[in-house]
Amino acid sequence: MAKYTIGIDFGTLSVRALVSDVETGREMGWAVCDYPHGVMDASLPDGTILQSDWALQHPEDYIYELKKAVKEAVRKSGADKESIIAVGVDFTASTVIPVDQSMRPLSDKYPSNPHAYVKLWKHHAAQTQADRMTRIAEEQNYDLLDFYGGRVSSEWTLPKIVQMLEEDERLFDETDLFVEAGDWIVYCLTGKYRKSAMIAGYKAFYSTDRGYPEKSYLKAIHPKLENIFETKLRGEVYPAGQSAGTLTREMAQALSLPEGIDVAIAAIDAHVSLPAADITRNGEMLMIMGTSSCHIVLGGDMKKVNGMCGAVKDQVIPNLTCFEAGQSCVGDMFDWFVRNNFPAEYEEKAKKLNMNRHEYLTHLSKDKKPGESGLIALDWLNGNRSVLVNAELSGLILGMTLSTKAEDIYRALIESAAFGTRMIVDTFDKAGVPIEKICACGGISTKNEFLMQIYADVLKRDIRIARSAQACALGSCIYAASAAGSPKGGYDDVFEAARHMGGVSEKVYRPRLENTGVYDRLYAEYRRLHDFFGRGGNDVMKRLRSIKKDASR
Amino acid sequence: MAKYTIGIDFGTLSVRALVSDVETGREMGWAVCDYPHGVMDASLPDGTILQSDWALQHPEDYIYELKKAVKEAVRKSGADKESIIAVGVDFTASTVIPVDQSMRPLSDKYPSNPHAYVKLWKHHAAQTQADRMTRIAEEQNYDLLDFYGGRVSSEWTLPKIVQMLEEDERLFDETDLFVEAGDWIVYCLTGKYRKSAMIAGYKAFYSTDRGYPEKSYLKAIHPKLENIFETKLRGEVYPAGQSAGTLTREMAQALSLPEGIDVAIAAIDAHVSLPAADITRNGEMLMIMGTSSCHIVLGGDMKKVNGMCGAVKDQVIPNLTCFEAGQSCVGDMFDWFVRNNFPAEYEEKAKKLNMNRHEYLTHLSKDKKPGESGLIALDWLNGNRSVLVNAELSGLILGMTLSTKAEDIYRALIESAAFGTRMIVDTFDKAGVPIEKICACGGISTKNEFLMQIYADVLKRDIRIARSAQACALGSCIYAASAAGSPKGGYDDVFEAARHMGGVSEKVYRPRLENTGVYDRLYAEYRRLHDFFGRGGNDVMKRLRSIKKDASR
Repeated sequence: MAKYTIGIDFGTLSVRALVSDVETGREMGWAVCDYPHGVMDASLPDGTILQSDWALQHPEDYIYELKKAVKEAVRKSGADKESIIAVGVDFTASTVIPVDQSMRPLSDKYPSNPHAYVKLWKHHAAQTQADRMTRIAEEQNYDLLDFYGGRVSSEWTLPKIVQMLEEDERLFDETDLFVEAGDWIVYCLTGKYRKSAMIAGYKAFYSTDRGYPEKSYLKAIHPKLENIFETKLRGEVYPAGQSAGTLTREMAQALSLPEGIDVAIAAIDAHVSLPAADITRNGEMLMIMGTSSCHIVLGGDMKKVNGMCGAVKDQVIPNLTCFEAGQSCVGDMFDWFVRNNFPAEYEEKAKKLNMNRHEYLTHLSKDKKPGESGLIALDWLNGNRSVLVNAELSGLILGMTLSTKAEDIYRALIESAAFGTRMIVDTFDKAGVPIEKICACGGISTKNEFLMQIYADVLKRDIRIARSAQACALGSCIYAASAAGSPKGGYDDVFEAARHMGGVSEKVYRPRLENTGVYDRLYAEYRRLHDFFGRGGNDVMKRLRSIKKDASR
Repeated sequence: MAKYTIGIDFGTLSVRALVSDVETGREMGWAVCDYPHGVMDASLPDGTILQSDWALQHPEDYIYELKKAVKEAVRKSGADKESIIAVGVDFTASTVIPVDQSMRPLSDKYPSNPHAYVKLWKHHAAQTQADRMTRIAEEQNYDLLDFYGGRVSSEWTLPKIVQMLEEDERLFDETDLFVEAGDWIVYCLTGKYRKSAMIAGYKAFYSTDRGYPEKSYLKAIHPKLENIFETKLRGEVYPAGQSAGTLTREMAQALSLPEGIDVAIAAIDAHVSLPAADITRNGEMLMIMGTSSCHIVLGGDMKKVNGMCGAVKDQVIPNLTCFEAGQSCVGDMFDWFVRNNFPAEYEEKAKKLNMNRHEYLTHLSKDKKPGESGLIALDWLNGNRSVLVNAELSGLILGMTLSTKAEDIYRALIESAAFGTRMIVDTFDKAGVPIEKICACGGISTKNEFLMQIYADVLKRDIRIARSAQACALGSCIYAASAAGSPKGGYDDVFEAARHMGGVSEKVYRPRLENTGVYDRLYAEYRRLHDFFGRGGNDVMKRLRSIKKDASR
């Protein structure tokens, strides 16, 4: 009888469940359920107003939609309940939930307190705290950040916790644990709190060699932080691909799954795609392209790479270092544009052609030549993660004339995202981590051929696409098969599972020679603006944020 | 019996005729007629494609719509035909028509040749020629540009002529005269070719003291230019406010006006508004606000002012120097935005509130505080006239985040226009030409209270509004009354006419103290970006134009 595993992929706006055949990786059935509260960046459900740069979620959404998604995926797959041998979970990170002694999110008790909610990875309101953490590490000559891109990102765990400590110390005191959302889901499924070493490694400075950061550093940030890893961030860490425990009776009933099947240790949504896309060799990069983009690069030795978000050796692929970089704003930026700047004139025309807004703008701009619009943009509408690690940066569009059309701006935004990726690739290259092969996965990679071709032209490299259109969820299926182990019908390790279940599709985007030269010229301009506004030439973006803050008082 | 004059104001998109009472300036009737061909910036009527930065007009439009407008204005005024004593004409400048020996525009003969058409003031395709003319003046240590802002503008007469000479020498050779459109209209009305000293002074380097530029300079630009002012730009110049001649029988019949009434020497649309707005004293500035803006400043002695477009002493007001500066893109920029970026979502909402697009965006942004959007823009979508005199500059918007709304960008564009004006005012101030009083006229000044209040807040000065909503046309009525002279029921000079017929309204926009501080901070940011991108910090805008040109080949 065929065996199946379920991968549950918690994204920024929705949760996806996928049922996959353990022998072939074939995708039998899947379902996607949106979070009813989405990303709360303007107000709480009760109307409490949020300041700018906040991004919260409602933890109820996770459990409620998880149940719907799993049941629907299993129903669609036609799989017999008893043939399902394990569940894997991946989540955005660092997405942090403050909980009480019973692991109940504090937002249950304090529905009007923003700090009681889940702080989503892209909650950027802890930039001040992140900056101070960077400064203190520098002042102490502490090499902590050497392998974290040299700067603390507001997207990581500690700045989010320090923000609460500074802005609502009573709530901090009342918090029993700050739990990664991925670990919390695994707890809900198994009743066991087993922290993911992958998440702790990339988002909370955990290292297999050195453990957690030194207490003198933590104390200098705030006295109450000194013992944080023994108290509110306590818990043993476990490598990905292991079993965290088995599905409880209660959750088995709620999900209509067998009680007692294995649940894998939680993983970061980005990183689980590696085995799903067969990215296992030195010099290979996986781009996970969605609302934001994550770049995972496999290299040999550990190296310092500017603006890289983190690097962990041996954690993902044996004997290789797995570097992580990212762009904070990709799909989000194109969605922002069509939501706020799609011309009223185009609405009817797009409908007549039966195209959505993205398709219509693409239709209008795809036959133009690179450089023809005279525009250049900086893709910083949600700050810059790599290589500048600065959430206070903001967007820029330059070169408009009275002939500039909406589709020109739309295309310039796509090009800016491609330039941002090239900046990352070049930075790895300069740091001695050359990138030879690129594979992409995630929604945009399969949906947007126009964009992918621009990426290939800008990067001057072939780009392959993961075979699965839902590589994260498939990655979690692979980790689940590893967690189950061969005796139960799974595999002995993640890599054996990956060989059977992962891979790339036939489609290859190749750079077009007629475009690469112009894109080199445009990229040189991007680079100049990037370095000027991102590296202290003019800190106008930071000052505008400060003026905005004053004005909003 | 009451006497009336007619002012005919040729704008960028339409011609306006106004019948005004000579004793009081009361506006009896008026009419506006759009040019059927509008501004041709993409193609000729026969489909011939135009390159970027071109802006042409069809000379037939002028005569055809002039006839309609005058007849309609007179009909509406109820004025008896015989009570009309004179006609005055103002026109955009430098708007140049190549004509044959019979004063017939060459576009009649060559309808497929772009160079045969009228080159509108905002035709910017002669930037290369303008730059070369600047360079040659510098190389020759020739002080010609001292009182023209230090740089030749592509909006002036000579660069437009040199462009034709270089790109279509046969057509240049065939051209008998390059005629200013204003002078051409006066010729059509009177049969006399009498060049306006005001237009020649501001747009073709004519000076009462020194005449036209030196031949050695002209020859260095192009050998065929050496004698241009004796050949294709020949003709005696006459001061404004004088009679150019009398209305021919043919035109009198076509316009239903009395034969033989006086027609005033043509004037520049901007400058005729001065007497209409009672701007006659040292330290006063008139802003004419429309698709672009023109700033006319009255000062004492002649001074060098950076980026000023021109300065003429005694020409407009006795004993005072009349400086001219300008912004190339004001109303055009807001129109560009609502045409290309008005969100489809807002269309229905605006209709429900019975608002046009400008009104609806204003409605959404008017209660926000300065700085609240976090945005800053450069108002260069049509290049920069003052103070940088560079048509190759382009627009910039900076500071967008995923929360930025269309109305935020719209407001940032309005603010950028206000900052551009402050840059001009500050530059005059630094050059020793202080500006104490500001009056505005033109469409925007009477239609857009939200914008005018932002201007007052940014400029930190009271702004008064010309009494007439059609100050240019009224100015032409005043010049017409002067041309007729007192024996025929007019006035002895322009200033006596202005005292009776001009003035300002009661409305005063006063700076709001709660806003001026924030706008000072935002203006400092504008200034930094202005100087960086406009003064050689990064010539990316120029390079993007060059990439665009290469791409469009």
